[in-house]
Amino acid sequence: MPRTRVPVPPQTADTMTAAQLARRDRVVQAVVELVAAGRVDDLGMKDVAERSGVALGTIYRYFSSKDHLAAAALRAWAEALDGTGPHAPLPDGSMADRLVIILRRAVRAYQRQPSFGRLLLLAANSTDPFASQCYREMGESVYATLGQALEELDGEQRRRVLDVVGAVWYHALVEWVNDRKTIAQVYEAVEDAARLVLAGHER
Amino acid sequence: MPRTRVPVPPQTADTMTAAQLARRDRVVQAVVELVAAGRVDDLGMKDVAERSGVALGTIYRYFSSKDHLAAAALRAWAEALDGTGPHAPLPDGSMADRLVIILRRAVRAYQRQPSFGRLLLLAANSTDPFASQCYREMGESVYATLGQALEELDGEQRRRVLDVVGAVWYHALVEWVNDRKTIAQVYEAVEDAARLVLAGHER
Repeated sequence: MPRTRVPVPPQTADTMTAAQLARRDRVVQAVVELVAAGRVDDLGMKDVAERSGVALGTIYRYFSSKDHLAAAALRAWAEALDGTGPHAPLPDGSMADRLVIILRRAVRAYQRQPSFGRLLLLAANSTDPFASQCYREMGESVYATLGQALEELDGEQRRRVLDVVGAVWYHALVEWVNDRKTIAQVYEAVEDAARLVLAGHER
Repeated sequence: MPRTRVPVPPQTADTMTAAQLARRDRVVQAVVELVAAGRVDDLGMKDVAERSGVALGTIYRYFSSKDHLAAAALRAWAEALDGTGPHAPLPDGSMADRLVIILRRAVRAYQRQPSFGRLLLLAANSTDPFASQCYREMGESVYATLGQALEELDGEQRRRVLDVVGAVWYHALVEWVNDRKTIAQVYEAVEDAARLVLAGHER
Protein backbone atom coordinates (compact mmCIF):
# COMPACT_ATOMS: atom_id res chain seq x y z
CA MET A 1 0.00 0.00 0.00
CA PRO A 2 1.20 3.53 -0.68
CA ARG A 3 3.22 5.38 1.92
CA THR A 4 3.06 9.10 2.33
CA ARG A 5 6.38 9.88 4.05
CA VAL A 6 9.69 8.43 2.91
CA PRO A 7 12.28 8.91 5.67
CA VAL A 8 15.93 9.77 5.02
CA PRO A 9 17.98 6.54 4.90
CA PRO A 10 20.06 6.22 8.07
CA GLN A 11 23.74 5.31 8.06
CA THR A 12 24.03 1.51 7.89
CA ALA A 13 26.02 -0.45 10.47
CA ASP A 14 28.46 -1.82 7.86
CA THR A 15 29.76 1.70 7.15
CA MET A 16 30.27 2.65 10.81
CA THR A 17 33.53 2.90 12.75
CA ALA A 18 33.91 0.95 16.01
CA ALA A 19 33.23 4.15 17.95
CA GLN A 20 30.07 4.80 15.94
CA LEU A 21 28.88 1.23 16.48
CA ALA A 22 29.47 1.58 20.22
CA ARG A 23 27.46 4.81 20.27
CA ARG A 24 24.71 3.17 18.24
CA ASP A 25 24.60 0.27 20.73
CA ARG A 26 24.40 2.72 23.65
CA VAL A 27 21.40 4.37 22.01
CA VAL A 28 19.64 1.04 21.44
CA GLN A 29 20.41 -0.06 24.99
CA ALA A 30 18.98 3.19 26.38
CA VAL A 31 15.73 2.50 24.52
CA VAL A 32 15.61 -1.08 25.83
CA GLU A 33 15.97 0.31 29.38
CA LEU A 34 13.34 3.02 28.88
CA VAL A 35 10.89 0.49 27.44
CA ALA A 36 11.63 -1.93 30.29
CA ALA A 37 10.66 0.93 32.62
CA GLY A 38 7.32 1.17 30.83
CA ARG A 39 8.01 3.99 28.39
CA VAL A 40 6.58 3.03 25.02
CA ASP A 41 3.85 5.32 23.72
CA ASP A 42 5.48 8.27 25.47
CA LEU A 43 9.06 7.37 24.58
CA GLY A 44 10.84 10.64 23.80
CA MET A 45 13.93 11.02 21.64
CA LYS A 46 15.28 13.60 24.09
CA ASP A 47 15.08 11.05 26.91
CA VAL A 48 16.96 8.60 24.71
CA ALA A 49 19.66 11.21 24.01
CA GLU A 50 19.94 12.03 27.70
CA ARG A 51 20.11 8.43 28.88
CA SER A 52 22.56 7.28 26.23
CA GLY A 53 24.74 10.40 26.29
CA VAL A 54 24.53 10.52 22.49
CA ALA A 55 23.51 13.78 20.79
CA LEU A 56 20.06 13.94 19.21
CA GLY A 57 21.53 14.81 15.79
CA THR A 58 23.73 11.71 15.93
CA ILE A 59 20.78 9.50 16.90
CA TYR A 60 18.92 10.74 13.84
CA ARG A 61 21.92 9.89 11.65
CA TYR A 62 21.76 6.27 12.84
CA PHE A 63 17.98 5.88 12.89
CA SER A 64 15.46 7.20 10.41
CA SER A 65 12.77 7.74 13.05
CA LYS A 66 11.64 6.88 16.55
CA ASP A 67 9.92 3.83 15.04
CA HIS A 68 13.19 2.61 13.54
CA LEU A 69 14.86 3.00 16.91
CA ALA A 70 11.97 1.18 18.60
CA ALA A 71 12.27 -1.72 16.15
CA ALA A 72 16.05 -1.90 16.68
CA ALA A 73 15.52 -1.97 20.46
CA LEU A 74 12.92 -4.72 20.16
CA ARG A 75 15.28 -6.81 18.06
CA ALA A 76 18.16 -6.26 20.49
CA TRP A 77 15.95 -7.22 23.43
CA ALA A 78 14.66 -10.34 21.67
CA GLU A 79 18.16 -11.44 20.69
CA ALA A 80 19.53 -10.91 24.18
CA LEU A 81 16.98 -13.11 25.95
CA ASP A 82 19.00 -15.21 28.37
CA GLY A 83 19.20 -18.94 29.15
CA THR A 84 15.59 -19.04 30.29
CA GLY A 85 14.53 -17.36 27.05
CA PRO A 86 13.67 -18.94 23.72
CA HIS A 87 17.38 -19.62 22.99
CA ALA A 88 18.01 -21.98 25.92
CA PRO A 89 18.85 -25.65 25.14
CA LEU A 90 15.94 -27.95 24.35
CA PRO A 91 15.01 -31.14 26.21
CA ASP A 92 14.01 -34.30 24.34
CA GLY A 93 10.42 -34.95 23.34
CA SER A 94 8.19 -34.94 20.28
CA MET A 95 8.49 -32.08 17.79
CA ALA A 96 5.32 -30.56 19.19
CA ASP A 97 6.62 -30.81 22.77
CA ARG A 98 9.85 -29.08 21.82
CA LEU A 99 8.12 -26.39 19.80
CA VAL A 100 5.72 -25.73 22.67
CA ILE A 101 8.65 -25.30 25.05
CA ILE A 102 10.29 -22.64 22.86
CA LEU A 103 6.98 -20.88 22.33
CA ARG A 104 6.30 -20.85 26.08
CA ARG A 105 9.69 -19.28 26.72
CA ALA A 106 8.97 -16.58 24.14
CA VAL A 107 5.56 -15.82 25.66
CA ARG A 108 7.14 -15.80 29.12
CA ALA A 109 9.60 -13.09 28.06
CA TYR A 110 6.71 -10.80 27.09
CA GLN A 111 4.77 -11.75 30.20
CA ARG A 112 7.72 -10.61 32.33
CA GLN A 113 8.13 -7.33 30.45
CA PRO A 114 4.75 -6.49 28.96
CA SER A 115 5.85 -3.14 27.57
CA PHE A 116 7.81 -5.04 24.92
CA GLY A 117 4.44 -6.32 23.69
CA ARG A 118 3.40 -2.75 22.93
CA LEU A 119 6.80 -2.18 21.35
CA LEU A 120 6.21 -5.19 19.11
CA LEU A 121 2.93 -3.76 17.82
CA LEU A 122 4.54 -0.40 17.28
CA ALA A 123 7.36 -1.94 15.25
CA ALA A 124 5.02 -4.26 13.31
CA ASN A 125 2.71 -1.41 12.29
CA SER A 126 5.21 1.33 11.61
CA THR A 127 4.98 3.16 8.29
CA ASP A 128 8.75 3.69 8.37
CA PRO A 129 10.30 1.16 5.95
CA PHE A 130 13.49 0.99 8.06
CA ALA A 131 11.51 0.02 11.14
CA SER A 132 9.61 -2.50 9.03
CA GLN A 133 12.85 -3.96 7.66
CA CYS A 134 14.24 -4.30 11.17
CA TYR A 135 11.05 -6.05 12.26
CA ARG A 136 11.26 -8.41 9.29
CA GLU A 137 14.86 -9.34 10.17
CA MET A 138 13.82 -10.05 13.73
CA GLY A 139 11.15 -12.39 12.35
CA GLU A 140 13.81 -14.36 10.51
CA SER A 141 15.85 -14.85 13.65
CA VAL A 142 12.69 -15.94 15.53
CA TYR A 143 12.05 -18.52 12.77
CA ALA A 144 15.60 -19.85 13.18
CA THR A 145 15.09 -20.26 16.94
CA LEU A 146 11.70 -21.96 16.58
CA GLY A 147 12.98 -24.08 13.71
CA GLN A 148 15.39 -25.86 16.09
CA ALA A 149 12.40 -27.80 17.39
CA LEU A 150 11.51 -29.01 13.90
CA GLU A 151 14.66 -30.68 12.64
CA GLU A 152 12.76 -33.74 11.38
CA LEU A 153 10.93 -31.57 8.83
CA ASP A 154 12.37 -30.45 5.52
CA GLY A 155 12.79 -26.72 4.89
CA GLU A 156 9.47 -26.20 3.18
CA GLN A 157 7.40 -28.16 5.71
CA ARG A 158 9.16 -26.32 8.51
CA ARG A 159 8.36 -22.94 6.99
CA ARG A 160 4.69 -23.86 6.56
CA VAL A 161 4.43 -24.90 10.21
CA LEU A 162 6.26 -21.80 11.42
CA ASP A 163 4.15 -19.48 9.24
CA VAL A 164 1.06 -20.76 11.03
CA VAL A 165 2.49 -20.94 14.53
CA GLY A 166 4.22 -17.56 14.18
CA ALA A 167 0.96 -15.96 13.06
CA VAL A 168 -0.94 -17.45 15.99
CA TRP A 169 1.78 -16.27 18.36
CA TYR A 170 1.62 -12.74 16.93
CA HIS A 171 -2.17 -12.62 16.94
CA ALA A 172 -2.39 -13.90 20.52
CA LEU A 173 0.06 -11.21 21.65
CA VAL A 174 -2.01 -8.52 19.91
CA GLU A 175 -5.09 -9.78 21.73
CA TRP A 176 -3.23 -9.83 25.04
CA VAL A 177 -1.72 -6.35 24.65
CA ASN A 178 -5.21 -5.08 23.84
CA ASP A 179 -6.85 -6.81 26.82
CA ARG A 180 -8.88 -9.29 24.79
CA LYS A 181 -6.92 -12.35 25.96
CA THR A 182 -5.34 -13.24 29.29
CA ILE A 183 -1.75 -14.43 29.30
CA ALA A 184 -3.06 -17.94 30.10
CA GLN A 185 -5.06 -17.80 26.86
CA VAL A 186 -1.93 -16.76 24.97
CA TYR A 187 -0.07 -19.85 26.22
CA GLU A 188 -3.06 -21.98 25.31
CA ALA A 189 -3.42 -20.50 21.83
CA VAL A 190 0.20 -21.08 20.83
CA GLU A 191 0.26 -24.58 22.33
CA ASP A 192 -3.00 -25.55 20.61
CA ALA A 193 -1.77 -24.26 17.28
CA ALA A 194 1.56 -26.07 17.55
CA ARG A 195 -0.13 -29.38 18.38
CA LEU A 196 -2.78 -28.96 15.70
CA VAL A 197 -0.37 -28.22 12.82
CA LEU A 198 2.04 -30.94 13.89
CA ALA A 199 -0.66 -33.59 14.47
CA GLY A 200 -0.08 -35.12 11.04
CA HIS A 201 3.68 -35.22 11.50
CA GLU A 202 4.05 -37.10 14.77
CA ARG A 203 5.06 -40.73 14.98
CA MET B 1 -2.37 -4.56 30.68
CA PRO B 2 -3.18 -1.26 32.39
CA ARG B 3 -4.95 1.45 30.46
CA THR B 4 -4.39 5.10 31.17
CA ARG B 5 -7.57 6.69 29.81
CA VAL B 6 -11.04 5.35 30.51
CA PRO B 7 -13.52 6.93 28.08
CA VAL B 8 -17.04 7.98 29.01
CA PRO B 9 -19.47 5.11 28.21
CA PRO B 10 -21.51 5.99 25.11
CA GLN B 11 -25.26 5.53 24.91
CA THR B 12 -25.96 1.91 23.95
CA ALA B 13 -28.12 1.04 20.92
CA ASP B 14 -30.76 -0.77 23.05
CA THR B 15 -31.65 2.50 24.81
CA MET B 16 -31.99 4.54 21.59
CA THR B 17 -35.16 5.74 19.87
CA ALA B 18 -35.71 4.91 16.20
CA ALA B 19 -34.63 8.44 15.29
CA GLN B 20 -31.47 8.10 17.34
CA LEU B 21 -30.68 4.75 15.74
CA ALA B 22 -31.16 6.26 12.30
CA ARG B 23 -28.79 9.11 13.18
CA ARG B 24 -26.28 6.64 14.57
CA ASP B 25 -26.45 4.62 11.34
CA ARG B 26 -25.93 7.79 9.27
CA VAL B 27 -22.80 8.53 11.28
CA VAL B 28 -21.44 5.00 10.80
CA GLN B 29 -22.26 5.11 7.10
CA ALA B 30 -20.45 8.45 6.72
CA VAL B 31 -17.33 6.87 8.24
CA VAL B 32 -17.60 3.87 5.91
CA GLU B 33 -17.73 6.26 2.95
CA LEU B 34 -14.84 8.39 4.18
CA VAL B 35 -12.71 5.31 4.76
CA ALA B 36 -13.65 3.92 1.34
CA ALA B 37 -12.34 7.23 -0.05
CA GLY B 38 -9.02 6.56 1.68
CA ARG B 39 -9.44 8.58 4.86
CA VAL B 40 -8.18 6.50 7.76
CA ASP B 41 -5.24 7.99 9.62
CA ASP B 42 -6.49 11.50 8.84
CA LEU B 43 -10.16 10.77 9.51
CA GLY B 44 -11.57 13.85 11.26
CA MET B 45 -14.64 13.92 13.49
CA LYS B 46 -15.65 17.23 11.93
CA ASP B 47 -15.71 15.63 8.47
CA VAL B 48 -17.88 12.87 9.88
CA ALA B 49 -20.29 15.42 11.37
CA GLU B 50 -20.41 17.34 8.11
CA ARG B 51 -20.95 14.29 5.89
CA SER B 52 -23.57 12.69 8.13
CA GLY B 53 -25.38 15.91 9.05
CA VAL B 54 -25.23 14.86 12.71
CA ALA B 55 -23.87 17.32 15.29
CA LEU B 56 -20.46 16.62 16.78
CA GLY B 57 -21.87 16.60 20.31
CA THR B 58 -24.40 13.94 19.30
CA ILE B 59 -21.71 11.82 17.67
CA TYR B 60 -19.77 11.88 20.93
CA ARG B 61 -22.87 10.74 22.82
CA TYR B 62 -23.11 7.65 20.59
CA PHE B 63 -19.40 6.86 20.37
CA SER B 64 -16.79 7.10 23.10
CA SER B 65 -14.01 8.10 20.70
CA LYS B 66 -12.91 8.20 17.08
CA ASP B 67 -11.58 4.66 17.57
CA HIS B 68 -14.98 3.44 18.70
CA LEU B 69 -16.54 4.99 15.62
CA ALA B 70 -13.84 3.45 13.42
CA ALA B 71 -14.51 0.00 14.90
CA ALA B 72 -18.27 0.41 14.41
CA ALA B 73 -17.70 1.40 10.78
CA LEU B 74 -15.43 -1.58 10.20
CA ARG B 75 -18.04 -3.93 11.61
CA ALA B 76 -20.80 -2.35 9.51
CA TRP B 77 -18.67 -2.63 6.37
CA ALA B 78 -17.75 -6.27 7.10
CA GLU B 79 -21.38 -7.21 7.78
CA ALA B 80 -22.62 -5.52 4.62
CA LEU B 81 -20.30 -7.37 2.24
CA ASP B 82 -22.49 -8.41 -0.67
CA GLY B 83 -23.08 -11.69 -2.51
CA THR B 84 -19.48 -11.85 -3.68
CA GLY B 85 -18.32 -11.35 -0.10
CA PRO B 86 -17.71 -13.94 2.58
CA HIS B 87 -21.47 -14.40 3.14
CA ALA B 88 -22.30 -15.70 -0.36
CA PRO B 89 -23.56 -19.32 -0.68
CA LEU B 90 -20.94 -22.04 -0.63
CA PRO B 91 -20.32 -24.62 -3.38
CA ASP B 92 -19.74 -28.30 -2.56
CA GLY B 93 -16.26 -29.61 -1.84
CA SER B 94 -14.08 -30.74 1.04
CA MET B 95 -14.10 -28.75 4.27
CA ALA B 96 -10.74 -27.23 3.33
CA ASP B 97 -12.02 -26.26 -0.15
CA ARG B 98 -15.06 -24.55 1.34
CA LEU B 99 -13.06 -22.79 4.03
CA VAL B 100 -10.55 -21.58 1.45
CA ILE B 101 -13.38 -20.13 -0.65
CA ILE B 102 -14.75 -18.08 2.27
CA LEU B 103 -11.28 -16.94 3.23
CA ARG B 104 -10.53 -15.86 -0.34
CA ARG B 105 -13.72 -13.82 -0.43
CA ALA B 106 -12.75 -12.09 2.81
CA VAL B 107 -9.25 -11.30 1.54
CA ARG B 108 -10.76 -10.08 -1.74
CA ALA B 109 -12.92 -7.56 0.12
CA TYR B 110 -9.82 -6.00 1.69
CA GLN B 111 -7.95 -6.19 -1.60
CA ARG B 112 -10.72 -4.14 -3.26
CA GLN B 113 -10.79 -1.54 -0.49
CA PRO B 114 -7.36 -1.56 1.13
CA SER B 115 -8.09 1.33 3.47
CA PHE B 116 -10.31 -1.04 5.48
CA GLY B 117 -7.12 -2.99 6.20
CA ARG B 118 -5.70 0.05 7.99
CA LEU B 119 -9.03 0.50 9.72
CA LEU B 120 -8.83 -3.09 10.95
CA LEU B 121 -5.43 -2.48 12.55
CA LEU B 122 -6.67 0.74 14.09
CA ALA B 123 -9.68 -1.03 15.63
CA ALA B 124 -7.64 -4.06 16.75
CA ASN B 125 -5.05 -1.91 18.52
CA SER B 126 -7.24 0.76 20.03
CA THR B 127 -6.85 1.48 23.74
CA ASP B 128 -10.56 2.41 23.89
CA PRO B 129 -12.41 -0.54 25.46
CA PHE B 130 -15.57 0.29 23.46
CA ALA B 131 -13.64 0.06 20.19
CA SER B 132 -12.08 -3.15 21.44
CA GLN B 133 -15.47 -4.59 22.35
CA CYS B 134 -16.86 -3.72 18.93
CA TYR B 135 -13.85 -5.41 17.31
CA ARG B 136 -14.37 -8.50 19.45
CA GLU B 137 -18.04 -8.72 18.40
CA MET B 138 -17.02 -8.46 14.77
CA GLY B 139 -14.65 -11.38 15.33
CA GLU B 140 -17.55 -13.52 16.56
CA SER B 141 -19.56 -12.81 13.44
CA VAL B 142 -16.51 -13.63 11.28
CA TYR B 143 -16.23 -16.96 13.14
CA ALA B 144 -19.88 -17.71 12.42
CA THR B 145 -19.36 -17.05 8.70
CA LEU B 146 -16.19 -19.14 8.48
CA GLY B 147 -17.75 -21.87 10.61
CA GLN B 148 -20.30 -22.57 7.85
CA ALA B 149 -17.52 -24.36 5.99
CA LEU B 150 -16.83 -26.65 8.94
CA GLU B 151 -20.17 -28.26 9.70
CA GLU B 152 -18.65 -31.73 9.98
CA LEU B 153 -16.63 -30.64 13.02
CA ASP B 154 -18.00 -30.40 16.54
CA GLY B 155 -18.02 -27.01 18.26
CA GLU B 156 -14.67 -27.38 19.98
CA GLN B 157 -12.80 -28.73 16.94
CA ARG B 158 -14.30 -25.96 14.85
CA ARG B 159 -13.15 -23.29 17.28
CA ARG B 160 -9.62 -24.70 17.37
CA VAL B 161 -9.40 -24.64 13.57
CA LEU B 162 -10.87 -21.12 13.36
CA ASP B 163 -8.54 -19.82 16.08
CA VAL B 164 -5.59 -20.83 13.97
CA VAL B 165 -6.96 -19.82 10.59
CA GLY B 166 -8.31 -16.51 11.95
CA ALA B 167 -4.92 -15.69 13.44
CA VAL B 168 -3.14 -16.44 10.17
CA TRP B 169 -5.67 -14.32 8.30
CA TYR B 170 -5.13 -11.41 10.72
CA HIS B 171 -1.37 -11.71 10.67
CA ALA B 172 -1.23 -11.89 6.88
CA LEU B 173 -3.36 -8.73 6.63
CA VAL B 174 -1.03 -6.92 9.06
CA GLU B 175 1.93 -7.92 6.90
CA TRP B 176 0.13 -6.78 3.75
CA VAL B 177 -1.00 -3.43 5.18
CA ASN B 178 2.60 -2.84 6.27
CA ASP B 179 4.09 -3.78 2.88
CA ARG B 180 5.79 -6.96 4.04
CA LYS B 181 3.53 -9.30 2.06
CA THR B 182 1.93 -8.99 -1.37
CA ILE B 183 -1.78 -9.71 -1.66
CA ALA B 184 -0.85 -12.95 -3.48
CA GLN B 185 1.10 -14.00 -0.39
CA VAL B 186 -1.92 -13.23 1.78
CA TYR B 187 -4.10 -15.58 -0.30
CA GLU B 188 -1.36 -18.20 -0.12
CA ALA B 189 -0.90 -17.87 3.65
CA VAL B 190 -4.59 -18.33 4.49
CA GLU B 191 -5.02 -21.19 2.03
CA ASP B 192 -1.90 -22.99 3.30
CA ALA B 193 -3.05 -22.61 6.90
CA ALA B 194 -6.55 -23.88 6.17
CA ARG B 195 -5.23 -26.96 4.36
CA LEU B 196 -2.60 -27.64 7.00
CA VAL B 197 -4.95 -27.54 10.00
CA LEU B 198 -7.63 -29.53 8.21
CA ALA B 199 -5.23 -32.16 6.82
CA GLY B 200 -6.03 -34.58 9.65
CA HIS B 201 -9.80 -34.11 9.25
CA GLU B 202 -10.34 -34.88 5.56
CA ARG B 203 -11.78 -38.14 4.33
